[in-house]
Amino acid sequence: MTLPALDHRDAAPALEELRALLGDRLSTAEAVREHHGNDVSYHEGALPDAVAFARTNEEVSEIVKICARHKVPLVPFGTGTSLEGHIAALAGGVCLDVAQMDAVLEVNAEDLDCRVQAGVTRKQLNEYLRDQGLMFPIDPGADASLGGMAATRASGTNAVRYGTMRENVLGLTVVLADGRIVRTGGRARKSSAGYDLTRLFVGSEGTLGVITEVQLRLHGIPESIASGVCSFESLEGAVSTVITTIQMGVPVARIELLDEVQMDACNRYSKLDYPVQPTLFFEFHGSEASTCEQAETVGAIAADNGGGEFRWATKPEERSQLWQARHDAYYAALALRPGCGGWPTDVCVPISRLAECILETKRDIEENGLVAPIVGHVGDGNFHLVYVIDPNVPEEVARASAHNDRMVKRALALGGTCTGEHGVGYGKMEFLKAEQGEAVAVMRSIKKALDPDNIMNPGKVLSV
Amino acid sequence: MTLPALDHRDAAPALEELRALLGDRLSTAEAVREHHGNDVSYHEGALPDAVAFARTNEEVSEIVKICARHKVPLVPFGTGTSLEGHIAALAGGVCLDVAQMDAVLEVNAEDLDCRVQAGVTRKQLNEYLRDQGLMFPIDPGADASLGGMAATRASGTNAVRYGTMRENVLGLTVVLADGRIVRTGGRARKSSAGYDLTRLFVGSEGTLGVITEVQLRLHGIPESIASGVCSFESLEGAVSTVITTIQMGVPVARIELLDEVQMDACNRYSKLDYPVQPTLFFEFHGSEASTCEQAETVGAIAADNGGGEFRWATKPEERSQLWQARHDAYYAALALRPGCGGWPTDVCVPISRLAECILETKRDIEENGLVAPIVGHVGDGNFHLVYVIDPNVPEEVARASAHNDRMVKRALALGGTCTGEHGVGYGKMEFLKAEQGEAVAVMRSIKKALDPDNIMNPGKVLSV
Repeated sequence: MTLPALDHRDAAPALEELRALLGDRLSTAEAVREHHGNDVSYHEGALPDAVAFARTNEEVSEIVKICARHKVPLVPFGTGTSLEGHIAALAGGVCLDVAQMDAVLEVNAEDLDCRVQAGVTRKQLNEYLRDQGLMFPIDPGADASLGGMAATRASGTNAVRYGTMRENVLGLTVVLADGRIVRTGGRARKSSAGYDLTRLFVGSEGTLGVITEVQLRLHGIPESIASGVCSFESLEGAVSTVITTIQMGVPVARIELLDEVQMDACNRYSKLDYPVQPTLFFEFHGSEASTCEQAETVGAIAADNGGGEFRWATKPEERSQLWQARHDAYYAALALRPGCGGWPTDVCVPISRLAECILETKRDIEENGLVAPIVGHVGDGNFHLVYVIDPNVPEEVARASAHNDRMVKRALALGGTCTGEHGVGYGKMEFLKAEQGEAVAVMRSIKKALDPDNIMNPGKVLSV
Repeated sequence: MTLPALDHRDAAPALEELRALLGDRLSTAEAVREHHGNDVSYHEGALPDAVAFARTNEEVSEIVKICARHKVPLVPFGTGTSLEGHIAALAGGVCLDVAQMDAVLEVNAEDLDCRVQAGVTRKQLNEYLRDQGLMFPIDPGADASLGGMAATRASGTNAVRYGTMRENVLGLTVVLADGRIVRTGGRARKSSAGYDLTRLFVGSEGTLGVITEVQLRLHGIPESIASGVCSFESLEGAVSTVITTIQMGVPVARIELLDEVQMDACNRYSKLDYPVQPTLFFEFHGSEASTCEQAETVGAIAADNGGGEFRWATKPEERSQLWQARHDAYYAALALRPGCGGWPTDVCVPISRLAECILETKRDIEENGLVAPIVGHVGDGNFHLVYVIDPNVPEEVARASAHNDRMVKRALALGGTCTGEHGVGYGKMEFLKAEQGEAVAVMRSIKKALDPDNIMNPGKVLSV
């Protein structure tokens, strides 16, 4: 992706004040800036002038006030695992790293909620919760920070049952562009009290404020978890299985699709022997009886749609083995072309259009000689692909880019969205306009009202 | 509630233009204005200068543009069943009634979604869907319009399983304060594309724009539905049953609490013979086996907490009979004091604090000689009470008002919200400030950005 051209502002006077505030928790070291200016995607990075490591809400507020006074941009940073250029410091300025804000502040086991600082990662939280029989199910793959997951409206494999960050964030502490510390939402499971600011900040990608604390909804660890894998004669059969499963209201926890290219990659990479066919990975949560019933129901649906035998796993170690193939999908894809890089992208369509969208996308991949395995959170109609491309061949990058354009437009034409879970960053701003039309002007009005000087992660989501 | 004092603006020039646009679909008849200026709550109404009946997005846009040009207020109106003075035309102006916008625009059965005009009511939609095996579960009691339900973030008895309007609105068509027609969200089950405008308009109570179309998430009608009623020795026992049920992840569809005062009222009103004790009404949705298992699990939990025998109902007619007591609760309450009026109010707290909150509230009711039965959507920690008061005795109204103040403050002190589902209207604006603090200033910035002349339902949610 071409880096958008934004004017850099002189950060020096702000950095001087920040150094007085933070001491050695302000870094201008090249390596640190490098690390914070590049995400794990294929989008070009851009280095901040400095990286600030904050520890408290009040400190974040002071940092923001200094930046605001000097009109210096500020880019919030969790773990840098976003995928659409979210953290590139397009106009320089300060990267605000929340990794040291890593305290679990409260767990209310009876109410199934907790509050954490933004830098707590999802794995850290789940470790913390395990002894209490609780879990936080949202799993985007990476061990992302919960602040970052809220900021990008993350979801992942469990969303079909448990929802996304949209449904699982109860409230936030946010530092606004003028340094005000604001709490949104609360601990009640529902509320009709005023505008839903929580949902406004969830998914705003750091452009409206810095998320410093997250109040989360938790779930009990299910009594029984069963995982199963089923290969299909055709992609249509796999997708029909998904549609019927969802329509029948089977409360499936995960339904993941891997196409035959990805299965081949996974077999090679993880030394497995799955059929090289479109394949569904399932997980069922519930009581013993309920997971059995769910498994039987889905087994029957799959059989009706050309599905083969299920491979089942119920013990934790069997389950992790079975999911290994899914979790290693990205590395397996990269291993198809050693020395190449990966460019992940995603779209999401109404489920009834999923087969059509994937099949046309695959045809387009083949016709253009690209290597791009497909995996999908198909219970939600969401699928990803990874372009495995040679970074030294600009023509190849351009070919992938053109394919991505067509795929997004295809998804929009089918009633879908330009991104199901990766977000907009600077990589999908043009697609956002194509999808949301006049609504983008409304987003811009809100941005201007809350960040008139455009210091919060400028050049992301909206070009402003 | 005292009516907030707002300046009336001269509506005459706007009405002239509106009459040219709408003909006899603009009414200035006293009876029509009376009907549209009063909701079903105890809050004082205020009549609009005229009522406009729109039929299309474009017509709504024209109406709004006329009002905007003359800076005349506009109050959107669904069925007038809101409860916090939402529709009182505090500054006069035009009431925009969407009742004639009653078309179901599309149903996508495979994708479990549909799009309706704002005036379609929830019962109308469910009638329409039944033959396809689909349902829209959100049930606030009244047969409200879906536009109004979106605008007030309605929920009700099924929210514990299916969520509220927040979770079930996929997208909206909204006419903004300048007449622009904007679409938000879309049909994809999830999206990370830009700010969540859908959730911003859901619950904005007509203060940010007029909702004209709603894209909704649907659900399959469950294979099996079982309802049961269980009386408890103590309120604590009933609430502990709820907490354990939720913690164990039993996917219960409804858990409703009626206190002994309400049960007494229901017995008298509906000629029933339930024990005059705190009582839980349950409903379980799922497969035959799953509802049985849920019922058994909950039965065991209830027995551990001083619950008596369950009365079960699985046939539709038995179920409706059983739920009759719950549905007639409001009228049963009113019948306790013939000739009196009802003032419903609600709060929502974390479930672990529910017993405490209800018990203190009941003590306060008794100490102040009020008649105020309690019902609650306790799976969410949400409960309501209805003050049954004599409208001709101001002292009685004042006593109820003071009690309401204390109850809301109690809920806030326990980590709750001033309203779980009724909304803010003009009845709870002060409580919103107490609850949300600085966040109210952020709401105000957004309101000013989207409605600079404050023509959209002025004096509600925010005093501005």
